[in-house]
Amino acid sequence: MTNYEHGADIYSTAKKFNIDEDKILDFSSNINPLGIPKSIKKAYLKSLEVCHRYPDSKLRKLSQKIGDYEEVPKDWVFISNGASEGIYRTVLSLKPKKALLTAPSFGEYEESLEILDTNISYYYLKEDNNFDLNEDFLNLINNDIDILFICNPNNPTGRITKKGLIQSIIEKSYNCGTYVVIDESFLDFLPNKTNLSVVDFIKSYPNLIVLKSFTKIYSIPGIRLGYCICSNIDLIKSIKKNGPPWNISAAAEACGMAALKEDRYISKSISYIKSQRKYLLKELRNLGFKVYKSEVNYILFRIDKNIDLKELLEKNHILIRSCSNYKGLNKAFYRIAVKSKKDNDILIDTLKEIIK
Amino acid sequence: MTNYEHGADIYSTAKKFNIDEDKILDFSSNINPLGIPKSIKKAYLKSLEVCHRYPDSKLRKLSQKIGDYEEVPKDWVFISNGASEGIYRTVLSLKPKKALLTAPSFGEYEESLEILDTNISYYYLKEDNNFDLNEDFLNLINNDIDILFICNPNNPTGRITKKGLIQSIIEKSYNCGTYVVIDESFLDFLPNKTNLSVVDFIKSYPNLIVLKSFTKIYSIPGIRLGYCICSNIDLIKSIKKNGPPWNISAAAEACGMAALKEDRYISKSISYIKSQRKYLLKELRNLGFKVYKSEVNYILFRIDKNIDLKELLEKNHILIRSCSNYKGLNKAFYRIAVKSKKDNDILIDTLKEIIK
Repeated sequence: MTNYEHGADIYSTAKKFNIDEDKILDFSSNINPLGIPKSIKKAYLKSLEVCHRYPDSKLRKLSQKIGDYEEVPKDWVFISNGASEGIYRTVLSLKPKKALLTAPSFGEYEESLEILDTNISYYYLKEDNNFDLNEDFLNLINNDIDILFICNPNNPTGRITKKGLIQSIIEKSYNCGTYVVIDESFLDFLPNKTNLSVVDFIKSYPNLIVLKSFTKIYSIPGIRLGYCICSNIDLIKSIKKNGPPWNISAAAEACGMAALKEDRYISKSISYIKSQRKYLLKELRNLGFKVYKSEVNYILFRIDKNIDLKELLEKNHILIRSCSNYKGLNKAFYRIAVKSKKDNDILIDTLKEIIK
Repeated sequence: MTNYEHGADIYSTAKKFNIDEDKILDFSSNINPLGIPKSIKKAYLKSLEVCHRYPDSKLRKLSQKIGDYEEVPKDWVFISNGASEGIYRTVLSLKPKKALLTAPSFGEYEESLEILDTNISYYYLKEDNNFDLNEDFLNLINNDIDILFICNPNNPTGRITKKGLIQSIIEKSYNCGTYVVIDESFLDFLPNKTNLSVVDFIKSYPNLIVLKSFTKIYSIPGIRLGYCICSNIDLIKSIKKNGPPWNISAAAEACGMAALKEDRYISKSISYIKSQRKYLLKELRNLGFKVYKSEVNYILFRIDKNIDLKELLEKNHILIRSCSNYKGLNKAFYRIAVKSKKDNDILIDTLKEIIK
């Protein structure tokens, strides 16, 4: 609950304009526009019946369910209060002296590393290379690096790193004694996720930790649920110890159980988002913005006019993510979520008004 | 989610006897037997409507509400995922080299201090003094101690430390540069809590952190909500940074707002628990146990026969807390919650069967 540089601060905007939070179109957080699946809603309401008792602090049923879903033993799973808790606990368990991050990327890797004053070095993703991660990243991995993070697909760029390169990174890291955290929080939005996920490397590489999130794909940021997987059982045990027990609510446990049966909802979401993303990419380009190709549910773009687009849209009760506080980006960059057709139309119409 | 030494593992027992969790009488966790108030249930169900968006990561409304309730500015409040998250984040923020704990007491102080390998010294509460904290505790506070924890009322003994002694502890600690954490998680169960709480010292002592829990008094362990209060704004800011943002679910936020209006529920609970506690204290003494006087919703007792009471009761699907893993206690000690009349009768009848 530190800062709002993550986006999603509809609360400040609502207060500023004295309107209800529901009246704000939030393009600053990347949540599935199809909304919460019925089965999850049902599980949520039913979970009230067990709120008078402590959840299973070992979360045996949900760990088993996730293990089955990911085809790994349940002991390799740590269930977290949102994917971000997995980041913080991993850092607290490994107590890294030196870390390697890419930039721009998700801010919480850095924020968690600041707790123990870890020294951080950065690989800057190049704009003229579409912010793609290249082979030269491998040169930065050495025995001094204790941990590195890669967000795949990357947030906020939406770019994907190929599985072959990630394997090389894990392999070199393994030889250097470096832990690798691959954050696959947005991978569920891709139709070919099995060709991209590195979960199948977990068995061979005890230095690999994969992060997953329920928040985005199932549209449940208010429920707080994610997990991480690692075959190094000692590390998972340490992650479990490095924070409070009962980190997961009864609602999160019940919703997680329901969510993992929602295959059809995911494929429906992917196809809906694909068509809406196509529309948004085209319209943003027509507006004269430099738009970075995305395959996920958010889009990064640059605008070279000297205007504060976030502020101008906020006056219309539309929230977008300014990327000015991302290392490696600046105030010319913005990120928007791919939302429903109706919402996307409003955004594009409003942008046309502003830009003309 | 580390171990089950905390009690409340109805899940293991349910599996062991192949029965539903609801069939187990759980005297091992100290939850208000009156159950979840209606207004909280209503808030829980309604919170589903906002689960599709991120909660306010600054929790402005709930912080304000808690601030008003405790008569402190909202900036002095950190809202936590159960009171235990407040313990962990305080430790991570202060990074103490040396800590002072009482024993027996709540295990999570120690567990959180183990993350950073803090050196811990113990003040052993004496059985022949009813496990009360005495003035001689003051002699252990010196410039070397970075942090000390006091649980008031103490868990598992149920004993209360008088406000005057706690003030002396805070005052000496202030002069020694020692932070003091007073855990008032069970104080709401006392009729005279305003005469015992040290919240009114917070303004004068920036080295004081007070912990509070919604879990026990409102019967919502599945919802995960607590808070800590401190007038040292820099420390509160650091506590907010030393862990993931969005640590609180939409349900917890909504239920917290509803809970703080439940004055009548609390007074009703106190009077109900008082009569049931009186009954249990009497019956346990009649059974020949050494029973420690309690003013809260749990009771510590010692049994000098060489039997495993926990195991014997578990066969009857009743769970109690063995205190064998508490520093300063041993396998002769047990803790039970004060539950409903019906449940308490079953416990006493079963104990009579076992003991005869």
